[in-house]
Amino acid sequence: MLNIARWVVAAASAGVPLVLLVLGWGPLTAGHPAHLVLLGVVAAAGVAIALWRRTPAWLALTLPVVLLAPLLYLQPFASTQDGDDATVLRPDGTPKAGLVFHPGARVDYRAYLPMLRRVAAQGFLVVVVKEPLNIALLGGDTADLRAEHPEVPVWAVGGHSLGGVAAGKDVLADPSVRGLVLWASYPVDDLSGRAGLRAFSIHGERDGFTTPQDVADTRNRLPADTRFEVVPGAVHAFFGDYGDQPGDGEPTTSRAEAQERIVADTVAALTALA
Amino acid sequence: MLNIARWVVAAASAGVPLVLLVLGWGPLTAGHPAHLVLLGVVAAAGVAIALWRRTPAWLALTLPVVLLAPLLYLQPFASTQDGDDATVLRPDGTPKAGLVFHPGARVDYRAYLPMLRRVAAQGFLVVVVKEPLNIALLGGDTADLRAEHPEVPVWAVGGHSLGGVAAGKDVLADPSVRGLVLWASYPVDDLSGRAGLRAFSIHGERDGFTTPQDVADTRNRLPADTRFEVVPGAVHAFFGDYGDQPGDGEPTTSRAEAQERIVADTVAALTALA
Repeated sequence: MLNIARWVVAAASAGVPLVLLVLGWGPLTAGHPAHLVLLGVVAAAGVAIALWRRTPAWLALTLPVVLLAPLLYLQPFASTQDGDDATVLRPDGTPKAGLVFHPGARVDYRAYLPMLRRVAAQGFLVVVVKEPLNIALLGGDTADLRAEHPEVPVWAVGGHSLGGVAAGKDVLADPSVRGLVLWASYPVDDLSGRAGLRAFSIHGERDGFTTPQDVADTRNRLPADTRFEVVPGAVHAFFGDYGDQPGDGEPTTSRAEAQERIVADTVAALTALA
Repeated sequence: MLNIARWVVAAASAGVPLVLLVLGWGPLTAGHPAHLVLLGVVAAAGVAIALWRRTPAWLALTLPVVLLAPLLYLQPFASTQDGDDATVLRPDGTPKAGLVFHPGARVDYRAYLPMLRRVAAQGFLVVVVKEPLNIALLGGDTADLRAEHPEVPVWAVGGHSLGGVAAGKDVLADPSVRGLVLWASYPVDDLSGRAGLRAFSIHGERDGFTTPQDVADTRNRLPADTRFEVVPGAVHAFFGDYGDQPGDGEPTTSRAEAQERIVADTVAALTALA
């Protein structure tokens, strides 16, 4: 009988932290790591105290429960602004236009937030897509993400590298999208005849992946009035904040200076649409 | 011999995803959940294939390795801008002033980012602290966080609720801090004699936790020239985006309208320091 009670307490000691982890996954993993450590320590300690035969029975049954109480209290209030599929950056006041942005392949989406926050601050709503496996092409259509923001008068889609390819697919799938903003990217589909599209291609002069030659060679896949901007001395990895990328070119400018240009060119593109 | 080889492959199938999870913890948990699911599925499938006796030996030894290869390729490039202890929101150009911000107790720090981004966009560098267990008082001193940004000419500290109490302790610990910005909070320490401090207290008229009475009762703990701003109709949970808080007051304004005021009052406070 007592043994059964010990097993029940041990199961609760392991189960309650596990349930709290699953329910609070977003805020718990985004926050300070101490919380995850505490969940693990309480689970391990509770099980050990309940099952160790030399723990007196009254202690084996009460101490694990006492340990669980603060965990329940500490369960965080989640942010209502961060979802599983996208993060939204809002401007002050009503947005002049919106941009759905696809990160580059294998890049943490958070690496694009510092630059895109600066874009958003100029009056644009920016939706940064969290791609499955960080591969933009696996994400499917983004029409649902746009539909969540009916206050946006006109939409562009864009992306870095492979994210730009996904943006090209969005443009073909949804005729209501008016703008395309490519960062160090080029389309694989022919968008040259897509009615009503204004396209902007921003690329780095020293990019080792999307070279100026690649951009020139695929120019005929974009509308004839596409605006091309070259960022002097910039490489592929300057379009985000994720360090260096093996195989990239050698930059002849600073990351900060390049990003200043990329933000300004993007703001100019969205302003032209608005 | 073959059995040993099967066990080695099984161990690699479990161990490689685990190592990738630990090394890529930040970007993997922040991103789309598909990546975590894939790590788990590959680990389980690899172990099962290697150890199941009816798998032919050649398949048991090669298939798990084939499954591991894409995991290595997909390991994300981490954002260089997101740390374990804080998130930094930068303005365009050189910041006019800086604000270290402590979230309220038990609240996901991301719930404060939409409002603080709007503050940052007005020319201020904002450092949002990730508190251990989301309890600001456990975080200790924030002088190190400020020292990382020597370009900031003048610093304020602030916080919501318990975060404001932590900000008061920062002000006492570091005489170089010039400003204090309380959101629905009041100090527990006596700051009335703290030399050179400009203090701003912004609170909600209908707050059920930090009531206007609480603010009035603790007024003598703040410098005589402290500026008090009441946000009409606002409650405690309007100072972040984390939903409703049980025990809070009944609001008589909208969240959006209240937040407009809170952002404007905070920008005015930082502008007065700059």
